[in-house]
Order: sequence, then C-alpha cells, then structure tokens
Amino acid sequence: MERLPGFRDFYPEPLPHPDVWSADARQYIFAKWRATARTYGFREYDGPPLEPLELFTTKSGEEIVGQLYNFADKGERSVSLRPEMTPTLARMVAAHERNYKKPIKWFAVPQLYRYERQQKGRLREHFQFNADLIGESDPAADAELIALLIDSLRAFGLTAEDFVVRLSSRNAWHEFYHRGRQDSSEADAVHEYQFFQVIDKLERALPEESAKKLAALGFKLDDVNAFIAGGKPTAQLQFILDNLAARGLGGFVKIDYHVIRGLAYYTGVVFEAFDRKGEFRAIAGGGRYDNLVKLISGGKVNLPALGFGMGDVVLLELLKARGLLPAFDANVDVFCLIEEESLRPATLQLVQNLRLSGRAVEFPLTPTKPDKQFKRAQELKASFTAKLDNDSYVRIRNLKTRQEVVAGVRDAANHLT
Amino acid sequence: MERLPGFRDFYPEPLPHPDVWSADARQYIFAKWRATARTYGFREYDGPPLEPLELFTTKSGEEIVGQLYNFADKGERSVSLRPEMTPTLARMVAAHERNYKKPIKWFAVPQLYRYERQQKGRLREHFQFNADLIGESDPAADAELIALLIDSLRAFGLTAEDFVVRLSSRNAWHEFYHRGRQDSSEADAVHEYQFFQVIDKLERALPEESAKKLAALGFKLDDVNAFIAGGKPTAQLQFILDNLAARGLGGFVKIDYHVIRGLAYYTGVVFEAFDRKGEFRAIAGGGRYDNLVKLISGGKVNLPALGFGMGDVVLLELLKARGLLPAFDANVDVFCLIEEESLRPATLQLVQNLRLSGRAVEFPLTPTKPDKQFKRAQELKASFTAKLDNDSYVRIRNLKTRQEVVAGVRDAANHLT
Repeated sequence: MERLPGFRDFYPEPLPHPDVWSADARQYIFAKWRATARTYGFREYDGPPLEPLELFTTKSGEEIVGQLYNFADKGERSVSLRPEMTPTLARMVAAHERNYKKPIKWFAVPQLYRYERQQKGRLREHFQFNADLIGESDPAADAELIALLIDSLRAFGLTAEDFVVRLSSRNAWHEFYHRGRQDSSEADAVHEYQFFQVIDKLERALPEESAKKLAALGFKLDDVNAFIAGGKPTAQLQFILDNLAARGLGGFVKIDYHVIRGLAYYTGVVFEAFDRKGEFRAIAGGGRYDNLVKLISGGKVNLPALGFGMGDVVLLELLKARGLLPAFDANVDVFCLIEEESLRPATLQLVQNLRLSGRAVEFPLTPTKPDKQFKRAQELKASFTAKLDNDSYVRIRNLKTRQEVVAGVRDAANHLT
Repeated sequence: MERLPGFRDFYPEPLPHPDVWSADARQYIFAKWRATARTYGFREYDGPPLEPLELFTTKSGEEIVGQLYNFADKGERSVSLRPEMTPTLARMVAAHERNYKKPIKWFAVPQLYRYERQQKGRLREHFQFNADLIGESDPAADAELIALLIDSLRAFGLTAEDFVVRLSSRNAWHEFYHRGRQDSSEADAVHEYQFFQVIDKLERALPEESAKKLAALGFKLDDVNAFIAGGKPTAQLQFILDNLAARGLGGFVKIDYHVIRGLAYYTGVVFEAFDRKGEFRAIAGGGRYDNLVKLISGGKVNLPALGFGMGDVVLLELLKARGLLPAFDANVDVFCLIEEESLRPATLQLVQNLRLSGRAVEFPLTPTKPDKQFKRAQELKASFTAKLDNDSYVRIRNLKTRQEVVAGVRDAANHLT
C-alpha cells in the first residue's frame, strides 16, 4: 500500500531511500525555529488543521481558489485543510485579542496543504514557520519581524553571503499605480490587483507577455522596469533599513521592488528571503496585512498586523546545498552490555537509573553474544559502554578515548562525561 | 467566523477563555514525551496526516468503520485523515525495514482524527504519543515498551499512587475462549472477536446485557468473572512482571483481565494505563500486533510488533487534577528599557547581542513612558531589566533580588545569571 501522492514519510536517519524525508532534520529545523522565536519574545499558538472553507475563500484572492484541499464533511459542512496559517491566526486573535497586551507576538509551526491537480510530483503539504506581530502599525514592528526572519536563518549557520531579504512595499506600488489616475472605483481596485499580479510574475514571465498585460492596464513595461531599477526606498522602508542597520543586520536586506507578494490581503511592507545565488525558490515571505483581522472578524476587531512564513522544503534544500545540515544518529549515550545473564536483573536496574538521569540507554533485550553486543554499541555510535562486573561494580568504557573506569553501580551516572 | 466543532484552538497562557486550550501545556507535554522516548533509544518518525482510506479499513475491525474522517479528494481518491498511527507505521516499516537493525524502536506525536456524528461536544482530533517496538517477539520487548510507558508518565511527576498499568493478554482470553471447543473455522474467529468485544465493554455495560451476549456465544458471565477475578498471570505476563520488577517498576503494574483492547489487530499482551482513583478514561493503551505488518504489506514483510498510544487530552486532565501542570508565561529573560530615545540604536544592538546569546529579550518597539515600560517588564515576569546609561555602559537589574550592576555593553550577557 502506497502513501498518497504529494505527501511525505519522515524516517529516522540514515535514510533508507532517496524518496523519503528525514524526521531528524525536521525536528532539528523545528527546534531552531522555536528557539529563535523565543529569543524574540514570540509565543507559540496553533489552530485546527481543518477549518471552514469560508475562512480561506473570504477575500483571499484569485491565487488561492482552486488550490485548496477542500471537501464536504459527513455533517455536510464545506471544510478545507489549511493552505496557510494567517486566516486562522486572524480568527483566533479576533476572538480573544482583549486578553492579550499589544503588540501580540505569536508563532506557529503548522503543516499546510494545497491540492494542485496539474502539477504531479509536487508536494501537497509542507511545514511552515509562521511568525506574526499584531497590534502595532509603526514600522518598528516591521523591523522587529524582519530581524526575527534573519536570525531564524542565521540560527542554521547561514550568513549574509548565503541569503538576502528583498524588501518592498505595496504602498510604493499603490502610489505608482495611481500616479496620474483619479479613479478609485471598485473596478479600478480589481485592475490594481491585476497590476500587482503582473508585477509578482515579472521575473518569471516573458517580457512580451508582461508588456502586453501592462499595456492593457494602461502601463508601459519600461516605466515599471525603471521604477524597479530606481529602487528608491520609501520613508517607511528607509526607517526599517536604519532600524536593522542599528542591530547590525544591514547586510541582510536590500530594497527590491520586484517583490510584491501574490496574496490579495497584503497592504504595506512586503518582503521575501532568497538565497544569494538565486538557485532556489523564495526561502520565506511576508508583509503587512492591516485589514485582514477586520475582514475575518466581520468588522468587530480592527488591528494592524504583519507576519511571515518560512517553509521547510526550500530551507532544507538550501541547508543541504551549503553543507549546513548535520548528520543525525540515535544519540545513544550508554550501551549496557550483558555478558552474564545472571547479571541481567541488576543490569535492568542500571539501565533504569541511567535513563532516569536523562541518558539515552540501549541494551540487548535478549541473550546476545558479547561481540555482537559490542558491534551494536559501535553501530549506534554510543558514547560509552557499561558492563556490570557483579551486582555492585560497573565497568564504564569511553568508546572514543577507550578509557575504562570501574565505579560503584549507584555512582555510574557520574562517570559518563 | 467559528472553528469547526470538535477542533481546538491553542493559545499562549494565561488562557483568554475556558473554551480554548493551552499551547504552552501542549508543548510541555510533547517535550516530556520526546525526551523520555529518547532515553529509551526510540527514534522519531512521522507519516502523512492523510492516507488512502484502504490503509485503515484493511482488517481494522468493526470498531473503526464509520468513525473515520474520510472523503473523496479532487483526484477522486478515497482518503481519510488518520484515526490512528499504527497502520501508517506498519506501512512505513514494511516499505523499508531492511535498512533498519531490529528491533526497530520508533515513536511519533501525530494529530489523529475521528468523525463521530452522534457525540456532539466530543473532540474530533487529539494528539497521541505513539511508541512501537518492531522485530522482537520476546516478552522482553513488551517489558521494555511498558517501562517506557511508565516512565513517560513519571516524567510529569506522576507516581505509583497516581496511576497503574493494567496488564492482560489476548492469548489468555484466546485460550479461555477455545477451552473445550474444537471449532477453528472462520465463522468461529468472528464469534471470538465478538466475544472479545463483550469482554472489552464488561466494566461499562449492564451485567444482564453482557450475560445475554455471552450466552449467545456459549459462555456464562460467572465463568468470565471468575477468570478475571482469578487474575493468574500467564508465563509471558509473569516474565514481564519480573522484568519490570528488576527495573524497580513493579509497583506500577498489575494483572487485570478486564483489559482486552477494542481494535481487531491485537494478538498477545495488551495493557492500559489508568489513574488509580478511576476518575478518568484510560491514559494510554497498547499491545502486541504481530500480524499487522504482514497484513499491511500484503504478506511481503512479516515482523512481530507491539506499541502503545497515549493521548494528550486525558493526560492533561489528570495532570491538572493532580496539580502537576506548571504555570507558563512568556519566559522573558531581559526587558531592555529605553528612556532616552537617542540611545535606541545602541539599545537595538544590545537587544540583538543578547538574543544571539540565547536570551529571550523584549523592549518597547516605539517611544514609551518609563513607568509603562517598567510595568510591562513586570507583567512579562522578566528576570532582568537592562538600561543603557550611554553607548558604553548598561545598568542591569535583577527583578527578583533587586540587585543592580553596571557593566560594559559587550559584557552584558555575563551579568544575566
């Protein structure tokens, strides 16, 4: 029986097959994400992997429709596996924001789902580090969040040589769009969003196609390209650059108006992190969505907000390519040898005591030849072996230094450093 | 917009509403599960939350049918959110077992889903600590796994006064069932499973009902009750009791033939952990399923196996009831005060350096009155405040001892203990 296409099995390393994923690397990545978020004072939250379909279709933009893993449940509710975390966050914040001091700084590590029928072989789920800052409209909040994004990548050993955060602004594009226009009708808002979509795809699309689409909206590709090439930071973006520079993080950001983000709900600053060599898709992306909480809460709660998401797949590829992913093993501290079966009960007590002291301990479950036991200890890369001489004394061997000590059984844990 | 019935939102503490769950308590529980599993040499794995429906319906027994969160995906595949982890594990092991030395010791912390239409108000998802030991038929494996179950509960501060593992055996019931019978037809296997179902519900059902159902299968309730009351351990169970006693864990187990487990695939030893006061549903349950890997792999791989699952919901209730759940807060180490806005850039650098040293650091994102800043530091239960006197010196105050030191900015991290 096979797993579903687009889903992943996570195995302990060493991996048995190129088609499966490392559970150890996954835990390593999650742990770094969590630890970095905590240094920034972000608190963890989570919501349901399954939500009412409506939560995601409410003004989420053309991009998301048709890509959802949605279905009708047995109670005939229209539901969807979550394709992103932000609508759930907005729902949760809107429900209970009064109980939390602003700004709210929260993070999550959800598994997200997309069903794209066409692209076979592409993943239909991934994990994403989501960090959001809610209730602060000052660009200092944007700087704080982008600093967290940068340090979340540095936590893996990535440097300013490896990645850069491309900083942009929907506001700047909004001004560009309206320069010389008086139209602020709803029809024009649709046109503006279409314009944003062309900008979003500019780097990947053929110039002729972009030019054609822009012309239909009343713009020249040359003007758009000149605006991007100019790359003049808005006052807000300059504030963010200065704030990051004060933290010593100036080398990790640059203005790049190519970035505009696909989702409809972004309102202000937007950004994406890329590897410097341009080998991979975006490592992370985010921005301001000052209207989303209001939208999701049906107008009841109005809070400015911004956030980013960082997926596990591109990050993993990048870490592998840069040689920054450690090798993982069972991390066994002690292998307890049993050469005399009469000493098994006493060895079981030793195993128990060492485990209670926090050590990872292995031992032969059933009678096993001494050489096979020792071989197993080596395969497991155990740091120590421990073998009872009798009920009272244990022989502890450091498998790296090959030093051996004999200690009292109760004192064994103190000889394992 | 509301979340779906039966699903949970997890918020940072203090909780804003009795209807939501603690993300902090969840992480606390997951961390203890993972740490204990690692001391036993168990490795983490995970599979897809969504699997082909067939994986779960293949001989999973009457109990599971109709309780699945199943649907047809856009590719018209019959799929289901996983109701349990064991079939996924069996699939994964069967696919790549040759690459792993036996016994395989793996654990996972999956979110599991059930759709029970009738019981409104009941949860439709929960998290479960799953630990399995595969490739060892000796009861020493059963003892090792049960020891892990016991220590996973002790990790939270629970003692032998709080819980007990009730140990039983499908083999013992199999023998009981066949005593005096010669029939080993398929029809009789169905009857035997029906018999197991009656035993499984014996403690909850009315005696008259159980007696009636047993009579229909050719048994007397009195005989069944006498067998349970006798409570004589089989040779296998005695071996397990002795093994656990050698580890000093004898006080955590007792023979109790009431336990038989509902799922069809169990084959030998079965067990459930209960609180001693009998206030809650089972905390954990598991047993041997020696035929499942063969079944799932279509006969290709034949490995004995056993495992247990421990849910987060009952455990959380128990820990709360016993006062063993710590209070959680933001765990802020340092709150950096900014009383002079001219010192903001230098403070940003200090914040950055302290975070890189692993400290959780908060500071006012925007200009804020000094007394409000200090109040915020106290609300966050920060251990220290740090305030720059100028670009070079920082005043560090321990908020518990109220001791204050002035240190060089670069030396600040050394004064935070």
